[in-house]
Amino acid sequence: MIRITFPDNSIREYEQGVTGLDIARNLSNSLAREVVAVSVNNEIWDATRPIRSDASVVLHKFDTPEGRHAFWHSSAHLMAEALEALYPGIKFGIGPAIENGFYYDVDPGDGVVITETDLPRIEEKMYELSRKNSAYKREEIGKKEVLDLFGAKGDEYKIELIRELEDGTITLYRHGNFTDLCRGPHLPDTSHIKAIKLLSVAGAYWRGDEKRKQLTRIYGISFPKKQMLDDYLVMLEQAKARDHRKLGRELELFTFSQKVGQGLPLWLPKGAQLRERLESFLKKIQTKHGYLPVITPHIGQKELYVTSGHYEKYGKDSFKPIHTPEEGEEFLLKPMNCPHHCEIYKSKPRSYKDLPIRYAEFGTVYRYEMSGELHGLTRVRGFTQDDAHLFCRPDQIKEEFIKVIDIIYTVFKAFDFHDFVAQVSLRDPENREKYIGSDENWEKAEQAIIEATQEKEMQTTVVRGEAAFYGPKLDFMVKDALGRKWQLGTIQVDYNLPERFELEYTGSDDQKHRPVMIHRAPFGSMERFVAVLIEHTAGKFPLWLTPDQAIVLPISEKYHDYAEKVLKFLNNCDIRTLIDSRNEKIGKKIRDNELKRIPYLLVVGEKEEAEGTVAVRRQGEGDQGTMKLEEFGNFVTNEVKKQLEHLD
Amino acid sequence: MIRITFPDNSIREYEQGVTGLDIARNLSNSLAREVVAVSVNNEIWDATRPIRSDASVVLHKFDTPEGRHAFWHSSAHLMAEALEALYPGIKFGIGPAIENGFYYDVDPGDGVVITETDLPRIEEKMYELSRKNSAYKREEIGKKEVLDLFGAKGDEYKIELIRELEDGTITLYRHGNFTDLCRGPHLPDTSHIKAIKLLSVAGAYWRGDEKRKQLTRIYGISFPKKQMLDDYLVMLEQAKARDHRKLGRELELFTFSQKVGQGLPLWLPKGAQLRERLESFLKKIQTKHGYLPVITPHIGQKELYVTSGHYEKYGKDSFKPIHTPEEGEEFLLKPMNCPHHCEIYKSKPRSYKDLPIRYAEFGTVYRYEMSGELHGLTRVRGFTQDDAHLFCRPDQIKEEFIKVIDIIYTVFKAFDFHDFVAQVSLRDPENREKYIGSDENWEKAEQAIIEATQEKEMQTTVVRGEAAFYGPKLDFMVKDALGRKWQLGTIQVDYNLPERFELEYTGSDDQKHRPVMIHRAPFGSMERFVAVLIEHTAGKFPLWLTPDQAIVLPISEKYHDYAEKVLKFLNNCDIRTLIDSRNEKIGKKIRDNELKRIPYLLVVGEKEEAEGTVAVRRQGEGDQGTMKLEEFGNFVTNEVKKQLEHLD
Repeated sequence: MIRITFPDNSIREYEQGVTGLDIARNLSNSLAREVVAVSVNNEIWDATRPIRSDASVVLHKFDTPEGRHAFWHSSAHLMAEALEALYPGIKFGIGPAIENGFYYDVDPGDGVVITETDLPRIEEKMYELSRKNSAYKREEIGKKEVLDLFGAKGDEYKIELIRELEDGTITLYRHGNFTDLCRGPHLPDTSHIKAIKLLSVAGAYWRGDEKRKQLTRIYGISFPKKQMLDDYLVMLEQAKARDHRKLGRELELFTFSQKVGQGLPLWLPKGAQLRERLESFLKKIQTKHGYLPVITPHIGQKELYVTSGHYEKYGKDSFKPIHTPEEGEEFLLKPMNCPHHCEIYKSKPRSYKDLPIRYAEFGTVYRYEMSGELHGLTRVRGFTQDDAHLFCRPDQIKEEFIKVIDIIYTVFKAFDFHDFVAQVSLRDPENREKYIGSDENWEKAEQAIIEATQEKEMQTTVVRGEAAFYGPKLDFMVKDALGRKWQLGTIQVDYNLPERFELEYTGSDDQKHRPVMIHRAPFGSMERFVAVLIEHTAGKFPLWLTPDQAIVLPISEKYHDYAEKVLKFLNNCDIRTLIDSRNEKIGKKIRDNELKRIPYLLVVGEKEEAEGTVAVRRQGEGDQGTMKLEEFGNFVTNEVKKQLEHLD
Repeated sequence: MIRITFPDNSIREYEQGVTGLDIARNLSNSLAREVVAVSVNNEIWDATRPIRSDASVVLHKFDTPEGRHAFWHSSAHLMAEALEALYPGIKFGIGPAIENGFYYDVDPGDGVVITETDLPRIEEKMYELSRKNSAYKREEIGKKEVLDLFGAKGDEYKIELIRELEDGTITLYRHGNFTDLCRGPHLPDTSHIKAIKLLSVAGAYWRGDEKRKQLTRIYGISFPKKQMLDDYLVMLEQAKARDHRKLGRELELFTFSQKVGQGLPLWLPKGAQLRERLESFLKKIQTKHGYLPVITPHIGQKELYVTSGHYEKYGKDSFKPIHTPEEGEEFLLKPMNCPHHCEIYKSKPRSYKDLPIRYAEFGTVYRYEMSGELHGLTRVRGFTQDDAHLFCRPDQIKEEFIKVIDIIYTVFKAFDFHDFVAQVSLRDPENREKYIGSDENWEKAEQAIIEATQEKEMQTTVVRGEAAFYGPKLDFMVKDALGRKWQLGTIQVDYNLPERFELEYTGSDDQKHRPVMIHRAPFGSMERFVAVLIEHTAGKFPLWLTPDQAIVLPISEKYHDYAEKVLKFLNNCDIRTLIDSRNEKIGKKIRDNELKRIPYLLVVGEKEEAEGTVAVRRQGEGDQGTMKLEEFGNFVTNEVKKQLEHLD
């Protein structure tokens, strides 16, 4: 008998050779139907693989990342089986699970082209094969035999991969008529795959090398239930409609220019104003929390980044050093603001009484990304961090964490991010030599973070070994309106930079001490945050933030003078108002402006002019009745005030 | 007889060979005593040089730049005569007039050192020699004879200079016992130099080449009247006390770091806050004037600046291109914001109805300056322009100029710059080929600018030939509190960039037209403006702008609680208030905080606590009596409001 420990620390005994699936069946049949993989001593295994000694075990259904990974990996194999059936002689590159679904890179052979019109046929074949309930079988065989196997098939890509493997046993997976070189794990059998959608076809160079052959990459996704696929496809449609690149263009928030360069956003007036409002919002909160603004240049001498270690980290694959007419002089675009803030800290002697010092800067940094990696505002080459560095004594870490958590909560609340989780990343206690800083400081800091999250009654997961080498951290992950997860908000302790910059303060003992540095960014960056916000709100920003709050729609030219009067009145109330003076029917004006996502449409005609009123429509909600001008002014002002009242 | 034309276009006839001095005597003896040089057909001559043909003539007294230049140049020769008398065998490099005074680079010979303690003795000798009324005499002789002359003296530096001159006649100037290689012009005689001050001694490499001998540079200044020297020395003391580098450090506004790099200011919290207030101030005005904010990156592809022509202008001697891991990809730090704004203009089609479009950005640009040229915040390598580009139709230039002039007036008023002049720079009508743009457009634009300045009833000087090659411009020159002149505020028409970027709008005729671009910056740059403001105000900024508006000084520890109450109350009124809780005597607290230039010192003790009052002192003005807390709050709020009321 072997002893199996469960996540709740309960222990049960089983026969040696029991499988995850056996254990699940033992617990409940319905569970067994859903188990797709199993963690055995933190390694992911097939649910059908025998366990031969005492182990801790976690059973995975589709609802865990590990479960989905096995599910989609098996789906890639299923697609490969279908392709082999439909395209005899097709050759296979690699076929992994990805964040959402799976793909396989294939070479259908000379003259054979697979396009998106072929996808339904392949899908159909996959359904047909999945209904055969073929089991996924794991095999370990010698390298030579594997080479023979794929050699016989003429699978040149697999052969190249196998040749690079170390000698010894190699793992294969077989199901139905398909065999693949693969570490696994996989589903018990194909019957789990009940809903399939192949999504797109793209070109992909073999091994990412543009000098080698371009293979055909087929993307797909699959689910254990039809309803899940339907929901996913609806979400995909919604996500497409909310794509921040599309909405950013439509709402005229930002643009890109080939001449300025890829990944370098140009903020258009409405976007720049929105960004300024976001910055003011955060500045106001930060001022209340004792942050001090600083402004630093976007370059620094190479030496600065050699001291900070950033040159080593970013130097090679990033923007290269900037030379000058002076020999030997080299500058770098700053990849981070912290070195500059360390130099400001150093600009005069500090006492323990001065701490904490909190320097805040909306600092634009530049990091090179390969052009293929760029994506709208979420992956760019230049971005503005809502950065701050808190220099504090070790005994102040907990209080500072609590204060930063308060700021992050305020931000989430103001933007309706209600669903979020936080992760505490601690060091791996088994590998202390990987980390900089004394044991005592690490223990203090980790304790401080955990206590801070407890005092704030936060839902957290604590992960050992995930800390940065320079300190433990706390990260926030929010779910947007479509249920997609985004990392927003990070707080990190740093022992490294104070050491590298030899930062000091004089303690109450009159001795020199090293301060602790905390990095934090509630938004992350203005670019990324605006992108997330666009996708979260589908461009319908909160009233206080939205570019234009109201638009006046005169029914005909006769009422333009009154419309101007309304415009002037509302702008004087600090309500951002436009006028649609086009010579169009009122119905068209309403439709067009609804699309622009302006919250209030104010129709004015004879009656409104006579009575000094506006006929109010709320975007997406229709007629709200007629209001006196002052009444509407107060109404909007109060709505904005209410949205921001928790800030005061 | 020859005909002499005067600046007022009157013409008089004189004997051939008449000198400027003769002409002056003919007009008035007192004028003749003051004339130090003369412009003959726009060339500066000695006042004693015979005029042999018809000419236009301007007589220069010390109050013109040309007059001062001759005066100080002659003073340098006088100093050289004194040095030769005191240090026989001394050798001379160059000795020019500079913006304020003159210097001479000399080699006193091996083992002889001239230090600042020697200056009084040299000054004394200069006074002695000036009283000899020696005439400055111009001579033209052959190169060989000049070489013999200086060869005999063993003047190796002069010989080197002479050798490089073209063959032909060379000009010498003699006065008293001193002869110098010199183009002149010079004073009639040494008697004009009535007040002399030698200021400092510095090392200077011969010909600026650090591989050659270091000479001794002696700086001095001189005047025709003793009172002028006294005034100048007082001004110099005041300027030293107001030096923005010194005050910037004392007031903790900005700092520099060797590691970040020279000429790259780090704005400390008080400076960053001040700068933010300046930016908000201008943003508010600009919003009212229909400006739209944009935000653009600090780099752009090299191609962008090749298109704009900036690469050609700044490329060679500036920050070099930034390479990336992608072969052939090159970026540049932006030296100007205009190319980015042109790309934003191009991001969608524009109609004549959309114009003018006014893009504003506080855009940080980088331009390389040699390290020797750097100076505090006035000459830096990175600076933030309060930039805007107005894209308009040719018929809108005048109105746009008037609006920008309004903004500049508002700025000058808010900072107490009452004394300013403006210069209209037009193209040289004789050299039309030097300029880009059609004759018709130039005439229209020049006319528009002149009419705009007339409508604003401005005092202007109109200078032909001073326009940029791309368009005419209007520059403002303000006098600060010490009477020193600073260029602040510029408005420039640009035909070049719209051409290079192929900018277009659709006219009412449905045809494509090219817009005109106007560059403008009321502050110039945040760095330069803050430097000028510090020196203009001696760090006593207007109340609305100053970093800290009030400080509470508790008489003893007993009143700290009440002081905290006062602090909280005032901060809630948005009055930037500090507290001096040091355990010091009240007298010392008052003295220390007066030095920090905090406008209001609020002393609180037993009486104030009992009555809910503060004892108010105004910095530099002493006791202002006791006020109730609310009263003081309203008092400051009203003062700020009054300072800014002309903005509304």
